[in-house]
Amino acid sequence: MSRRALPLFVFALALGGCATSPASTPAGAAATPRTMQQILEASRPADWRALEPGNTLLMELDDRRRIVIELAPQFAPEHVANIRTLAQGGFWNGLSINRSQDGFVVQWGDPAEEEAARRPLGAAKAKLPAEAEVRGTPALDTAWTRLPDPDGWAPQVGFVDGFYAARDPARNTYWPAHCYGMVGAGRDIAIDSSTGAELYVVIGQSPRQLDRNITTVGRVVQGMEWLSTVPRGTGPLGFFEKPEQRVTIRSVRLMSDVPRAERIALEAMRTDSPLFAELVEARRNRRDDFYKVPAGHIDLCNVPLPVRPIQR
Amino acid sequence: MSRRALPLFVFALALGGCATSPASTPAGAAATPRTMQQILEASRPADWRALEPGNTLLMELDDRRRIVIELAPQFAPEHVANIRTLAQGGFWNGLSINRSQDGFVVQWGDPAEEEAARRPLGAAKAKLPAEAEVRGTPALDTAWTRLPDPDGWAPQVGFVDGFYAARDPARNTYWPAHCYGMVGAGRDIAIDSSTGAELYVVIGQSPRQLDRNITTVGRVVQGMEWLSTVPRGTGPLGFFEKPEQRVTIRSVRLMSDVPRAERIALEAMRTDSPLFAELVEARRNRRDDFYKVPAGHIDLCNVPLPVRPIQR
Repeated sequence: MSRRALPLFVFALALGGCATSPASTPAGAAATPRTMQQILEASRPADWRALEPGNTLLMELDDRRRIVIELAPQFAPEHVANIRTLAQGGFWNGLSINRSQDGFVVQWGDPAEEEAARRPLGAAKAKLPAEAEVRGTPALDTAWTRLPDPDGWAPQVGFVDGFYAARDPARNTYWPAHCYGMVGAGRDIAIDSSTGAELYVVIGQSPRQLDRNITTVGRVVQGMEWLSTVPRGTGPLGFFEKPEQRVTIRSVRLMSDVPRAERIALEAMRTDSPLFAELVEARRNRRDDFYKVPAGHIDLCNVPLPVRPIQR
Repeated sequence: MSRRALPLFVFALALGGCATSPASTPAGAAATPRTMQQILEASRPADWRALEPGNTLLMELDDRRRIVIELAPQFAPEHVANIRTLAQGGFWNGLSINRSQDGFVVQWGDPAEEEAARRPLGAAKAKLPAEAEVRGTPALDTAWTRLPDPDGWAPQVGFVDGFYAARDPARNTYWPAHCYGMVGAGRDIAIDSSTGAELYVVIGQSPRQLDRNITTVGRVVQGMEWLSTVPRGTGPLGFFEKPEQRVTIRSVRLMSDVPRAERIALEAMRTDSPLFAELVEARRNRRDDFYKVPAGHIDLCNVPLPVRPIQR
């Protein structure tokens, strides 16, 4: 028995950075189904889109632990505008990760219990509408790529511009889906009590019951491993009981405000392309030697959304 | 805005230990649906089953980090017998966690690359049949509790004796489902290449594509937070690149071999009771004030399986 293997999962691989190889077989021309690795290697520049620095957050815990979040103004325009304002005002600099609840979320913001003791929001708004669900638009309809598989949480599930999403055609609405790495705006009991100053990321089994109940603002596209391994809090809801257990945030900046030499330049695989459809199919039925019984199915939150350093 | 809340997730709560309160309303008699917390508080001794010390592993990383695994002989009798033999022979003592792949699994065993360099299995068998799926029996049919919700991975999903499971009535087979905390036997390419000496636990979004492809041997019922936060490995498949990055395992023992004073005595909620059915329904439609849109659905791997210290 050699090195006992379990199949490679998507997130690590997708972030590994795979060179495009223009000489390889184009999508659709392959005689036998290609694996995810082969699909990534065969991708062309048009299969990727560069993340916009003005639509991306760089969160730094320290020199080593840098986290990149793509914002989703398609779904939460007012929250995303507020988050941009907060980042530009240095709101999170010196604040902390205050909650780490196993199998659920990691959350950061101002740890002060009392509102009066909290850092002011500066130029950002203190009151926003709930944006847990949005009305369909031609732009959303065009970006929408439906997953062929059934889902018990929503009439349809799929992808919008690289985000996990769901759709109700009867009500003509769309909403982001709470999959691993998705970032939302913490709130109180009232659905319109979030400002974007308090953010959480999904680290556990997709809590899709939060869909349509809470405003989702983006997705972690690099550095999830620094958030998913934060030691768990032992207080109620996974909050840290002692201030010294909190993880200090050095800074959160818009990538466009980061000096060019320090930026992380990433590109995401387009989710409205034939290549992405081929990738989904490759994950619905795994063809590598490890798998003996292909599933013939995939859940939304199991679909990889590859992101890599920009290839020049 | 007071303490910004996100709803309490199940695992932390379930392990918190809730006193039974015999005076509370019995299941079914409630006028309005009860929350999970109320259901736990109203539970009676008959709603719980004590874990059998001879069917439970205690894995110790150090004094503080103790992990309890319930074994599943219903699904993998030969693997579980081998694991008992390995534990009694001290096989894992001094070995290590060698792999931590974000969003997927954490894996432990002998880190040696070459088979010749590995620790001998002692009295355990070097060759076992694959036990990724088992034939239905009257015992399994009796234990089976079906989840009412659709699932794209299997004809039916539900629970057997406190384990996430799936069923194909047409083929009269059952198999464990790869949900958070489920423990499986690492293998090579051949489906019958596992011995139980190499084990992994699911730490990410349920990789149900592994169902029926790999033998599952149990579930972590306490201490998941020590496994889910192991720093991620940077080598292929999340293996650690340097020996010093591995996490040393002090010991893995059968709980029945642990001196009585050091044992962890746990009980699990029965999954074949009316109270458990009520709990599932409480999670399908969340009634607490935080939720504005009850989902009317739950995925198998989102259902909590409460475990707590034995109440005396």
